[in-house]
Amino acid sequence: MKESSRTKALGSSIHELSKHIFSGSISPVDLVEDILERIEDLNEELHAYITVMTDSARKEAKKAEADIKEGKYLGPLHGIPVSLKDLIYVRGVRSTSGSRILSDFVPNHDATVVRRLKQVGAIVVGMNNTHEFACGITNINPHYGSSRNPWDPARMSGGSSGGSAVAVSAGMAVGALGTDTSGSIRVPSSLCGLFGLKPTYGRVSKFGVMPLAPSIDHVGPMARTSWDTAALLQAIAGYDMLDESTLDLPVPDYLQIVSESDDKSRKFTLGVPKEYFFDLIDPRVMDVFENCLGEMHACGVSTVPVTLNETRKISDAWKAFRLGESAAVHSSWLKSRRSEYGSDVLAMLERGTKITAVEYITALRYKKELKDAFLKAMKGLDGLIVPTTSISAPMLEETSIDINGRNTEVYIALSRLTTVFNITGLPALNVPAGLVDGSLPIGVQLVGREFDEGLLLSLADMYERSSKISDRMIAPCLSRGNP
Amino acid sequence: MKESSRTKALGSSIHELSKHIFSGSISPVDLVEDILERIEDLNEELHAYITVMTDSARKEAKKAEADIKEGKYLGPLHGIPVSLKDLIYVRGVRSTSGSRILSDFVPNHDATVVRRLKQVGAIVVGMNNTHEFACGITNINPHYGSSRNPWDPARMSGGSSGGSAVAVSAGMAVGALGTDTSGSIRVPSSLCGLFGLKPTYGRVSKFGVMPLAPSIDHVGPMARTSWDTAALLQAIAGYDMLDESTLDLPVPDYLQIVSESDDKSRKFTLGVPKEYFFDLIDPRVMDVFENCLGEMHACGVSTVPVTLNETRKISDAWKAFRLGESAAVHSSWLKSRRSEYGSDVLAMLERGTKITAVEYITALRYKKELKDAFLKAMKGLDGLIVPTTSISAPMLEETSIDINGRNTEVYIALSRLTTVFNITGLPALNVPAGLVDGSLPIGVQLVGREFDEGLLLSLADMYERSSKISDRMIAPCLSRGNP
Repeated sequence: MKESSRTKALGSSIHELSKHIFSGSISPVDLVEDILERIEDLNEELHAYITVMTDSARKEAKKAEADIKEGKYLGPLHGIPVSLKDLIYVRGVRSTSGSRILSDFVPNHDATVVRRLKQVGAIVVGMNNTHEFACGITNINPHYGSSRNPWDPARMSGGSSGGSAVAVSAGMAVGALGTDTSGSIRVPSSLCGLFGLKPTYGRVSKFGVMPLAPSIDHVGPMARTSWDTAALLQAIAGYDMLDESTLDLPVPDYLQIVSESDDKSRKFTLGVPKEYFFDLIDPRVMDVFENCLGEMHACGVSTVPVTLNETRKISDAWKAFRLGESAAVHSSWLKSRRSEYGSDVLAMLERGTKITAVEYITALRYKKELKDAFLKAMKGLDGLIVPTTSISAPMLEETSIDINGRNTEVYIALSRLTTVFNITGLPALNVPAGLVDGSLPIGVQLVGREFDEGLLLSLADMYERSSKISDRMIAPCLSRGNP
Repeated sequence: MKESSRTKALGSSIHELSKHIFSGSISPVDLVEDILERIEDLNEELHAYITVMTDSARKEAKKAEADIKEGKYLGPLHGIPVSLKDLIYVRGVRSTSGSRILSDFVPNHDATVVRRLKQVGAIVVGMNNTHEFACGITNINPHYGSSRNPWDPARMSGGSSGGSAVAVSAGMAVGALGTDTSGSIRVPSSLCGLFGLKPTYGRVSKFGVMPLAPSIDHVGPMARTSWDTAALLQAIAGYDMLDESTLDLPVPDYLQIVSESDDKSRKFTLGVPKEYFFDLIDPRVMDVFENCLGEMHACGVSTVPVTLNETRKISDAWKAFRLGESAAVHSSWLKSRRSEYGSDVLAMLERGTKITAVEYITALRYKKELKDAFLKAMKGLDGLIVPTTSISAPMLEETSIDINGRNTEVYIALSRLTTVFNITGLPALNVPAGLVDGSLPIGVQLVGREFDEGLLLSLADMYERSSKISDRMIAPCLSRGNP
């Protein structure tokens, strides 16, 4: 970063920064200025942001600084600059959903997650680029430019919360919120070297978030560490009377749970499914996965092979939910504003209109069977560990890719291993696992039972401290200042 | 009835019979013999039963007689002969669903409602005729003969619980259970002069009942009086761990609630929606409805016009649920046993395969809006009162009918006013209201909020005692012995 950096905090975690902010050794005003400067430097190339909220961020930073000085400290997110996928509404701020259709849409209310972030003093610095309407996994965007991977700007960030991953990975935000309908939090987190959590369905409110496929849409955090992810989840989790998909269950103290992860007496056992997850995977990704299992073992986590039934209809069910529900959400615009969609999104929505009710109803029935199969596979265990993506970040222009001699569409290679947990609604956390060819990040998913986010974050934190993985996940542009 | 009648109880209610059974003045053995004889006399013409369980009914009657003599009285259904729509499984008894495909199917378990009826001593005498797979509202059945209306055997009973309505109306059972997906309990109850309740969705278990369209399928009672209906509901209502659509809520004492209906201090007010329910209605049916309102007023019930919004998509939503889900239920037989369906049912199932996921998802969204619109219309009131069917029983051969100069398909004229409450899941009770042209019964629906069955039955009982409606609902074949 440039010499002008005020805080020297580039690439720091929420955990580190919050201590400095609390003690007064870093001012939120300086931190926001550093972040805004970083955005100014990098956004033209990386396309992480669609809208930067310079004025309101500066104003909020001043207020945070003053409040903290007066002893009104609101907790670890107070004064922390965060960004939001541009589907998550902030009152009075343009919310494009990465689309031309909504290019002038200004919501008159905050999403519940935004209201909650503000309540704990987080500072929203801007709205992140996304695949148009979150309707794709690559973040190739014809309207706002494609977001680019900070590890290699010739490559994809992954999507559809790609801008958020780029922002956090490149030091243009300290944490972010994304949405995940097929893997859209976990995939760009895997490709950019971040932690990214798709919480249990019903854990986090979606009120004020542009829907894609409501029954499998999730909102969740993306961050540099497990602790940071827990801090963001803590702020946004819980019942919301404005979103009837949320469950009225107590929210545990995630930060407390994570802070207990250094209890060496706690032993974890994870299942590694024999079926589905290893059928189609780049051998270099497999090497990182195997190595990650070794690091897990080194910190006391056991792994056992488990059987997973009912995997044959995953793709059909995903299509029914994802394509059918998206087509329903977009049904009137498909008539009235057809020409304003990008060609790939229009084609996907068109496919959705052809899904039959029988296919959809069959998928609804299968959803329960698949969830039960996962719960059965987890029986007696703490959770599962599986790869997140079959490949590391492809080049921006790639649409298909070779995996073990099999020509595979990029969107399948990126989303095949994540969609399953959108269908089941089970929580899944991307944990950075290593670098493919020493240069491109790749992650693994920790998967739990419903509402086991605390356990997954605790396990990830234990692994993180033992493997020092976060130290290896510094994008080149963070160490050399610019990509 | 023939001179040989042992009990002279033809056409009596459960309420009356249960007193005699309890006191010993009528034996369940004699009652069952009378019922079996009545079936023997009438079934060939009326096609009320597909299967008569002569042996088991006689055996259970003897046991009931012995148990009651020994003081082991199980309550008002003990020793009462009831019949079941032939979709409701009885262990070891052929269950055809009115179809050729299931003509040899013998379930190895009781439906939960059957288990519960048996627990309180009811005697199942047989399985009633139905529209094939409950997939129609007329009970015209190419496989088992069409059930005929006891008030005029040249006319339809209505369906699809038509055989059950015929059985109770003609004295071939004292009460019955039916199923209702589009009005299949309430429509034949209206056409045959019975009480018929579609309970709140989730109130009565459907475990062991052949599905038609699971999200709008309901099981419920059909009987000669409100009290009888309450007695049957009391037996079958409540949570069932084998049916996840049931709600784990306490079951009120319906008989107690009904017995309190002679409390003159209690004032009821019902809304009469200005929209939808009177757009397409035979003027003679309208006359009976108006007259019924007058009788309601005479017993202290006020009625007020109310506004009902959101009625425009009722038909589309019904099609999406009813046709889409049926096609999903039947999807494998549609391939493997296509030729065994009756032509009307095959055509309907075929239409179901063409419903799109978008239509289905749109219907799911609309379902909530429609329910909210009804709840809004009921605000400050005890419920609603609307007609049950737009017409009285058509001739068996009629497929369309003239209503105010508008040629209307019979299935629409019969089901248009009932399907709405399958979509909303709200409880709806058919109450006999009078005779069209002095000869054909017609009913009205009392509609309540979720789980307000007790209130509806109490209101109906009050009206029944005041109007003496049940005394006017004696089918000609009951007074002259044979139709």
